[in-house]
Formats: sequence, C-alpha cells, structure tokens
Amino acid sequence: MKKEMIVYSVSDSLGGTSQKLLSAVTAQYPDIIFNNSYRFPFINKEEELLDILRDAIKDDALVISTLVDGKLASVAREFSQAHGLSYLDLMHPFFEIIKEKTGTDPIEVPGTLHRLDSEYFNKISAIEFAVKYDDGKAPQGFLDSDIVLLGVSRTSKTPLSIYLANKGYKVSNLPLIPEVPLPQVLEKVDSRRLIGLVCEPEKLAKIRSHRLDSLGLTQETSYTDLEKIYQELDYSKTVFKKYGAQIINMSDKSIEETAFLIEEHLKKLN
Amino acid sequence: MKKEMIVYSVSDSLGGTSQKLLSAVTAQYPDIIFNNSYRFPFINKEEELLDILRDAIKDDALVISTLVDGKLASVAREFSQAHGLSYLDLMHPFFEIIKEKTGTDPIEVPGTLHRLDSEYFNKISAIEFAVKYDDGKAPQGFLDSDIVLLGVSRTSKTPLSIYLANKGYKVSNLPLIPEVPLPQVLEKVDSRRLIGLVCEPEKLAKIRSHRLDSLGLTQETSYTDLEKIYQELDYSKTVFKKYGAQIINMSDKSIEETAFLIEEHLKKLN
Repeated sequence: MKKEMIVYSVSDSLGGTSQKLLSAVTAQYPDIIFNNSYRFPFINKEEELLDILRDAIKDDALVISTLVDGKLASVAREFSQAHGLSYLDLMHPFFEIIKEKTGTDPIEVPGTLHRLDSEYFNKISAIEFAVKYDDGKAPQGFLDSDIVLLGVSRTSKTPLSIYLANKGYKVSNLPLIPEVPLPQVLEKVDSRRLIGLVCEPEKLAKIRSHRLDSLGLTQETSYTDLEKIYQELDYSKTVFKKYGAQIINMSDKSIEETAFLIEEHLKKLN
Repeated sequence: MKKEMIVYSVSDSLGGTSQKLLSAVTAQYPDIIFNNSYRFPFINKEEELLDILRDAIKDDALVISTLVDGKLASVAREFSQAHGLSYLDLMHPFFEIIKEKTGTDPIEVPGTLHRLDSEYFNKISAIEFAVKYDDGKAPQGFLDSDIVLLGVSRTSKTPLSIYLANKGYKVSNLPLIPEVPLPQVLEKVDSRRLIGLVCEPEKLAKIRSHRLDSLGLTQETSYTDLEKIYQELDYSKTVFKKYGAQIINMSDKSIEETAFLIEEHLKKLN
C-alpha cells in the first residue's frame, strides 16, 4: 500500500504561490500519495491560524506557509516548534536574506503578486492575442507576432502559443496542410520569428490516433496513416526551408521544454 | 536611487519551479530592483555548479536552488557556507521533512514535473477546448463544459477561460450583445455551470477606452458610452437571471482572484 501524506497550505492571499513548488516536490515521490486539498487562503487572524495548525497536528500533516505577515508567521513558527508540527515557511527565509543584504523589510501586503499593473495587462493582451490568432484564423496577425508557430496537425501549436502568451509573448500559429495554400503575408514575416515544429512520424501517428479516440471517431482515416504523415511532414519541412523557419522537434518534449527552446532562440534575436 | 539585487536561479531541470515563488517574494519589495535574468537550467556537473557560485560571489547575488540531486545540493550548500554566499535551497527542506515523516527518499530525477502523464494531456486538451470554444464560436461546446462564462465585452472572459483551462477545467464563453440573439443550446446547459461576469459601468468604460487606445482607434463610439454600457450590463443581468447564472463582479479583481471564486463555486457542485 502506498504511503499517504497530508499537506496543508496556509496563505494570507490566494495561496497559489506554493503550489508549483509543491508539485515539483511531490513529483519526486512516486510512491507517496500527497493529499493537497487542504488549502487555507486569506488567513489574517491569529485564532483562525491556530485552529488550522491544531487540525494539522491531528492530521499529522506537513504545513507550508506563504504568509507574508511577520506576526502571523512567527505565531505559526513558534506554535509548530512547541508542538512538533512539521512546518515550512517559504517566504521568510527570503525576507531574512534580503534584510541582511539590503537592510530592507518587506511591505507585508498580502496578494501583491496579483496587483493589476502593466505587466499584468500585457500578459492578458498576449493571451487574447494568442486566442485570436490561433490556427491561422487571421494571418495578418503574423506581422505583429513575436513568434509565429508553423506545423502540421497535432504538433502542439495551440498549447505552446498559450503557454508562451502566459509569459507575455505575442504568438500566432498556422497549421500546415499540403492541400491548403499558404497565406501570402507569410512572406513578409521576419524569418527569425518563424518556428517550425516537427515530430517523429510514428509518434505523431500515435498522438493523432489518441486524438481521434478521444473524439469517439473511427481510426480508418488518412489522418493517422503513416505514409500520409510522412508526406505531410516532408511538406512542412519544405515550407520551413523556403521561409527560413527555425526547426524544433517536439517529440517527447513537454510544452515547457519546447517553449524553453523557443525563448532561448528569441533571446538571441534581441 | 533604488537598491538593486541580483538573483541567480540554479536548477537541474528547466528552472521554472522557483520563479512563481520568487515573483511573490520580490512583489514585497517595491523599492528594490531585482535582476532575475541569471538563470542556470540543466546543471548536472559539480564543476559547472561551482563556476556559477563563484560568479554569484562576485555579483553579490542571492542564489536560489531547485536542484533535486542530493550530491549537487550538498556541494552548493557547503560552498555557500564556506564563502558566506546567500543561498536558499527550496527543495531539500521538503525532502528532509518527508524523510522524517515517511522514511522515504526522493527519486532525485530532474524534470519529473514535466513528465507527459495523463494529467498533463488533460490540461493540454482543456487549453485546446478553451481556445476552440472561446467567444461563442461553437455554442454546442457549452454542453461539454465544466464552466460557461457569460458577459458583455471586456469582462475578461477569454483570459479567465485560459487560466481555468490551465488548471484542467473545460471552459467555454459567450459574449452577451443585446443585438445578437442567444444560442438556443444555452437552455440545455446545467445552470449551475453558468457564470455571469459583471463589472462596474465606470470601470468598464475605462477598460474599453484603454482597449480602443491600444487598437489605435478613436474614442467617439457607443462602445465606451456610459449610458450604452449601463444598458448592456442591464441586459446581461436579465440573461443571468433568466438562465440562473451565478454572478461574479470582476471589477478590481485579478484573473486569479475571479478564477478562485469560480473554483470555489464548482467545488460546491461535486
């Protein structure tokens, strides 16, 4: 039987900050089931906090905190020490080092990360841009794009566009279909902004079968036919060559990994 | 003059894990400029790591590590202690507590977070779903949605859809325009899955002006006319009432905050 471990997340804001780190940690333990459904956002009263910590003791839980309030964080730390509760404060180790290096104290305002500043609005427009110019819907958007993704069906153009948009890049994408003529505007795009996505043919056939399955469709189609896929990929490589696109093989890469390579490529342009 | 602080991020994978936490930390210091461009992904050799740490000393930097490799992490910790380098290991404090509580060691495989598992593919389909069913493009998608967002123009339907899709929810959205008839399928949607977005009229006028500005358009339009906006919002509230949608006021809320309220609402349904 797998071991189980309960994790409490305590925050004076939404509590999203700790979750990515926690995912990375739990991914290191395939044999432990982490129950991470105990999330306590918007905690700002000492009594409320102590009630949660008392429950955590009963549940033998690990408590992680992104409380920015210094007073609350001390209360939690002292309570945990006194009662042998496993407690990890993710914020204050940073605060201590920054104090030491710069003499500056944190403002201790919860939720400052979600302030509606220009960076935030830039990200929102980038997401709207990616949705608007997805799937070659409006090729004139290519000219305003930081990146134009090209590739045959199921080379992860859409999720990649959205992932990069989340980082503030303006991304459009165009599906390459041998039977469909390319939009003329493609010739005017700075070739360094063109990214050509390729995939191993066998892998692509598998992804496409899986896709059809999930749509409840029959498998007897040229969409998953390996010979047809070879032709499509050959065609796409001709296009990449003609337009000078940077080629990335996305087989067995996660969206994050492919996006990382694209960002590295972009950095070289500036 | 603002103080400056250089942050080095060291990882044996992509290094994305630490960045959200770091954003939350730096948001607490409006008067310090953090230079976070020193990122060192895919570090797996001791010499490489030590070179980076030596540079960090020269730059008087704070080093944050998400190295999962125990040997490398010890090397970094010992070097930092010996040389007075500010060093924060984000992973191993977790590893120690988990060892203590369960007796289990981490597998120490870098990049495990990005493994291509079913949760990952579920998220990818959710993003594709949100893009496909954005902006009322294909109302039949409403029936397969976990959430259908309704609202007049500029009530953040698209970014909200994408944000929730990133969390694995299937989300579609429909813009409410008094002059455009509602799709019939709306009547068949479980009303508990309908979310009606509203906004203070003055705030909405401001958002829309800003939008037109960014499109380089003139301001003389009914789109930003306050009286017209009142009418649109009144109309939208009639629709919400008729279909039993849960209403959320998104004025002055970040996407994260509005999404949080929607998730809380969804949890009550299950």
